[in-house]
Amino acid sequence: MRGEVLEAMLPYLTEHYGNPSATYGLASEAANAIAIAREQAADLIGAKPHEIFFTSGGTEADNWALRGALLLVETSMRTAEGKSKRHIISSRIEHQAILRCLKRLEEEGLAEVTLLPVDREGLVSPADLKDALRPDTILVSIMAANNEIGSMEPLAKLADLTHEAGALFHTDAVQAFGQIPLDVKKLGVDLLSASAHKIYGPKGTGMLYVRETIPFRSMIQGGAQEKNRRAGTENVPGIVGFGAACVCAKKTLPDRMRREGALRNLLIKRAEEIYPAARLNGPRPKGVGLAHRSSLLEQGTRDEEGPGKMPDWRLPGNVNICFPGKSAELLLIMLEAEGILASAGSACASGSLDPSHVLSAIGLSEDDNRASLRFSLGEETSREEIEKTADALERILK
Amino acid sequence: MRGEVLEAMLPYLTEHYGNPSATYGLASEAANAIAIAREQAADLIGAKPHEIFFTSGGTEADNWALRGALLLVETSMRTAEGKSKRHIISSRIEHQAILRCLKRLEEEGLAEVTLLPVDREGLVSPADLKDALRPDTILVSIMAANNEIGSMEPLAKLADLTHEAGALFHTDAVQAFGQIPLDVKKLGVDLLSASAHKIYGPKGTGMLYVRETIPFRSMIQGGAQEKNRRAGTENVPGIVGFGAACVCAKKTLPDRMRREGALRNLLIKRAEEIYPAARLNGPRPKGVGLAHRSSLLEQGTRDEEGPGKMPDWRLPGNVNICFPGKSAELLLIMLEAEGILASAGSACASGSLDPSHVLSAIGLSEDDNRASLRFSLGEETSREEIEKTADALERILK
Repeated sequence: MRGEVLEAMLPYLTEHYGNPSATYGLASEAANAIAIAREQAADLIGAKPHEIFFTSGGTEADNWALRGALLLVETSMRTAEGKSKRHIISSRIEHQAILRCLKRLEEEGLAEVTLLPVDREGLVSPADLKDALRPDTILVSIMAANNEIGSMEPLAKLADLTHEAGALFHTDAVQAFGQIPLDVKKLGVDLLSASAHKIYGPKGTGMLYVRETIPFRSMIQGGAQEKNRRAGTENVPGIVGFGAACVCAKKTLPDRMRREGALRNLLIKRAEEIYPAARLNGPRPKGVGLAHRSSLLEQGTRDEEGPGKMPDWRLPGNVNICFPGKSAELLLIMLEAEGILASAGSACASGSLDPSHVLSAIGLSEDDNRASLRFSLGEETSREEIEKTADALERILK
Repeated sequence: MRGEVLEAMLPYLTEHYGNPSATYGLASEAANAIAIAREQAADLIGAKPHEIFFTSGGTEADNWALRGALLLVETSMRTAEGKSKRHIISSRIEHQAILRCLKRLEEEGLAEVTLLPVDREGLVSPADLKDALRPDTILVSIMAANNEIGSMEPLAKLADLTHEAGALFHTDAVQAFGQIPLDVKKLGVDLLSASAHKIYGPKGTGMLYVRETIPFRSMIQGGAQEKNRRAGTENVPGIVGFGAACVCAKKTLPDRMRREGALRNLLIKRAEEIYPAARLNGPRPKGVGLAHRSSLLEQGTRDEEGPGKMPDWRLPGNVNICFPGKSAELLLIMLEAEGILASAGSACASGSLDPSHVLSAIGLSEDDNRASLRFSLGEETSREEIEKTADALERILK
């Protein structure tokens, strides 16, 4: 967490302990603090404050987006032919907060799900979405950027196609929120999930943006908090910390993108020099090694989305590289011994690693999947650390 | 929040920022901290650590208990006659986290609900429960203690009857947890909800106890956190704070009960002297004014429940008094001007007060409902503050 975030939270962890739903003065301090945080969060994505609903995190927001769409009785109940609108489209590389929730909705008989494939760079094709849309499609949920391989999806184009088919567009923006410019109005996004702890805010707080015209219903019922849409005593310190993190994220965003993007490119370049068989997973940044593929840029969708100045389709802080023939798990252990914390696959219950569903979706063999490492860069990552990481990789790989 | 709680949390808001689900060492610090908190929470209610699942609060835990019961395919699908088990029994004085969720489940066609009445003291009658139980009852949910009038329900007796009928017993213990002794094994409770901020812990953290033999399914899907039962990056500082608050609550419980109970009795006595028409809402403590009613104690259920030494059926920290002919809303404002924060009814969206559904359920007219004030005593409440409150009441009422 950022120092500024903790500082903003501390008063609400100590003297300002009022319950914002109570009627007395002590309560209104807390209620005002939440109102300010709501403005701060809205400001980061071009939303209105009353379109922001705080949750316990990105996972809850994702679940709510899916379940809430199915509760939109007015719009979802019937197609022209009288059929229930229960069809949801998503992609194979979504976070488990989407994929596992969709699986459950299918099991409960509440939804029919289509998962779109992605190309080798992890991008959803608008043409595939067009083919998958049906008269009974109620929701399309495509992540803004992938957490493992950093691919940014052509949201504006996908949202347009979705609206043409009369459905809603949700994006799990947990990984993109505060990392790249996002404007819900320009992108045409109806629902957006975000999380505080991905932008140096506190764990245990997130939000769902809901376009004001959508009569979205609660997933958790009880008290009248969040205008009756999310019950439960508000996590006041968490929400205040989220707001403070949004302010910092907005202020530092252009600099962070430039800096992290350059360091990312350096790490990719060094890794490819060290281990010539190395293969970058996810979109290739402009000017790093092989020319980046232009086909998607030619679609022009990135410019329509607002980011516009984006140097490429990859998150600035994400590096994911396959070292064919090596064991990612072993590399991780050896890197940690040198003080470098990387990741791979997803941690499973046994403490070992399951192969990544994202890397499978972009066509990696199970061997290459298990040979792939992810490095996450952040605001405090320095050029020296990147050099140190590359040097360590070189020693270890040799 | 207690000072000890914040102190326990601070390292996890700063240097120990690892994600407990990651594989590296930084993560295991966070994972260990959660494991310790789980033991601390379990210890307060006689549960095993692996029966504790952390949530974002009491409301989420309550919702999960209800929805989770309906997902128990093995036990809930069919009665002997092949009918779906979808019947839930609760009471008219439950918190909105139960009542509004039940209403939604009915609307969604997922449950049939029976709400039991309560007597004038706010107690559910075991005989009423017996009559309401049906072959298709899957769950009985009765709160451990009421948040407005402090009545403690005969949980052990109610749980017994529930089990005889082949259903599960849940208790919303948000108001009782850490305030009175609770032992899930002695009480025969299968599911129990609790919240951290009611015991001087942080807002935004709660838990659901799930008896280990119950194959309970998640309400929020995603990552494998909480043994696949509650997805989402763990709110590590919140959970650590919850654990610390449980340790303090256990240590101080007998003293707090004695102290708060005595101060509660003093406030009731003074209020009844000041305003002879005053009427206590909820169970009357032993030795305060009129003799307490003995019928319920004769049922012997309190002793069976473990608390045993309980002086009465009222929470130690709760006072709720009707001042017939007076406006609670006006009294609140005048008390606040003297630095005394009380409450009444429930705050509604407009900032004014809605009449309490709990006071209606124990038979108060709407006038008496709107003339009732609630005082909540806590660990730091002093005899001087009680005297000051009574003096202020005296001036205001005259």
